[in-house]
Amino acid sequence: MAAPSLSLHALPGIPLVEPGDDLAGLLGAALEASGLGLEDGDILVVAQKIISKAEGCYLALADVAPSPRAIEIAARVRKDPRHVEVVLSESSQIVREGPHVLVVAHKLGFVMANAGVDESNIDHKDGARVLLLPRDPDGSAAALKARLDARFGVTAGIVVNDSFGRPWRNGVVGVALGAAGVPALVDMVGAPDLFGRAMRVTEIAVADELASAASLLMGQGDEGLPAVLVRGYRRAAPERPAAALIRPRERDMFR
Amino acid sequence: MAAPSLSLHALPGIPLVEPGDDLAGLLGAALEASGLGLEDGDILVVAQKIISKAEGCYLALADVAPSPRAIEIAARVRKDPRHVEVVLSESSQIVREGPHVLVVAHKLGFVMANAGVDESNIDHKDGARVLLLPRDPDGSAAALKARLDARFGVTAGIVVNDSFGRPWRNGVVGVALGAAGVPALVDMVGAPDLFGRAMRVTEIAVADELASAASLLMGQGDEGLPAVLVRGYRRAAPERPAAALIRPRERDMFR
Repeated sequence: MAAPSLSLHALPGIPLVEPGDDLAGLLGAALEASGLGLEDGDILVVAQKIISKAEGCYLALADVAPSPRAIEIAARVRKDPRHVEVVLSESSQIVREGPHVLVVAHKLGFVMANAGVDESNIDHKDGARVLLLPRDPDGSAAALKARLDARFGVTAGIVVNDSFGRPWRNGVVGVALGAAGVPALVDMVGAPDLFGRAMRVTEIAVADELASAASLLMGQGDEGLPAVLVRGYRRAAPERPAAALIRPRERDMFR
Repeated sequence: MAAPSLSLHALPGIPLVEPGDDLAGLLGAALEASGLGLEDGDILVVAQKIISKAEGCYLALADVAPSPRAIEIAARVRKDPRHVEVVLSESSQIVREGPHVLVVAHKLGFVMANAGVDESNIDHKDGARVLLLPRDPDGSAAALKARLDARFGVTAGIVVNDSFGRPWRNGVVGVALGAAGVPALVDMVGAPDLFGRAMRVTEIAVADELASAASLLMGQGDEGLPAVLVRGYRRAAPERPAAALIRPRERDMFR
């Protein structure tokens, strides 16, 4: 019996991405150059960072005037007040304050460190700036999917990933910020276990597992591998966007 | 330029595991039967459940006398008082109570739902019973590694995975309970980003990402695929056990 399997391939040759770049074009070219192409059911995991860069989600810190509240919080958590101001403007709720970190609910719904406002892996030669999350990660994923599906004549999936820290556990893992054409969250209600009992686990965060798997090849630093093709994943489940992964506040025991 | 890649293979043909079974022998036979074998650097991800079963970590609920505290908590969270008693005896701290769930710190250190005390995918024909976590998941991983390394004449890695829910996000994902021969947590301090800046992200929970990746093939229900071979993962980093993934309570903002 053949072992069910899947393969992951980091795409080399993706150049540094600049605002206005045609990201779907760059990814399509990289898929072709790799010899992998894009097949039905393939899932392309794309780093949030290159989507934000292509969409021009930069903010120059020189243009940020921190509010009194941002200055007060910045002193407590020992961060740049301008950085705190940007975090606050991207957020709907502060969940926790800690040394050098604000855990917040981003306006998109994700609870995360510093609202994803990031200073690493971006070019600061024209002055310090930060990179924000894409304005609509599920929409960015859907747009990429439409372009790549058309280019290759297939039906593929897209997952936009980022690295999140977690309560209780050290280290970051890849999670899904956006998704299109994949079952980001799979409902197991009614599925039987090995002995025919109803399942204890009712939902699986498949898009987060795909994001984590791809992160194993992406790395976090100067590897420059911001896209990973996942081939062979099969699960019959309805498509759902990454927004389905956000737990509503009223069902959350930790905020 | 070749795309850096890795492949994952679920191992078919692993029988239902019983207490006292030689799990290393079963896994070795499944690796051979699959034609994959085991190569240097391969990582075998093994479901917690079959390790607990092989180690006989069962408890019959008929043998459990719930304490007054367990009865009181069970009424509040609407669970079987005997089940709550077992959860309490496996735990060092209750982190949150919710409907049908106790989020606790397991005595091993993991913060998780219901101390991993599980009733699904086990045989209840001789009366209701629960399955507990392995007594020493890193030790179980090390023992499996020693046996499999010897059988195949290689140096491989083992990750023991389980499915955890998370604050703020819907659905469960695979996480690492135990590990041997892998860098469960990778320290990026000092690593440069694309522009030579020091990294914001300092640690990557690689074993959790491996656990999540493997979970994509294992499923959660009656698939009966409790082991996944990961081939091609390369990262030069020191070996660390899964215990390194546990955030010390004093550095945790969420308990």
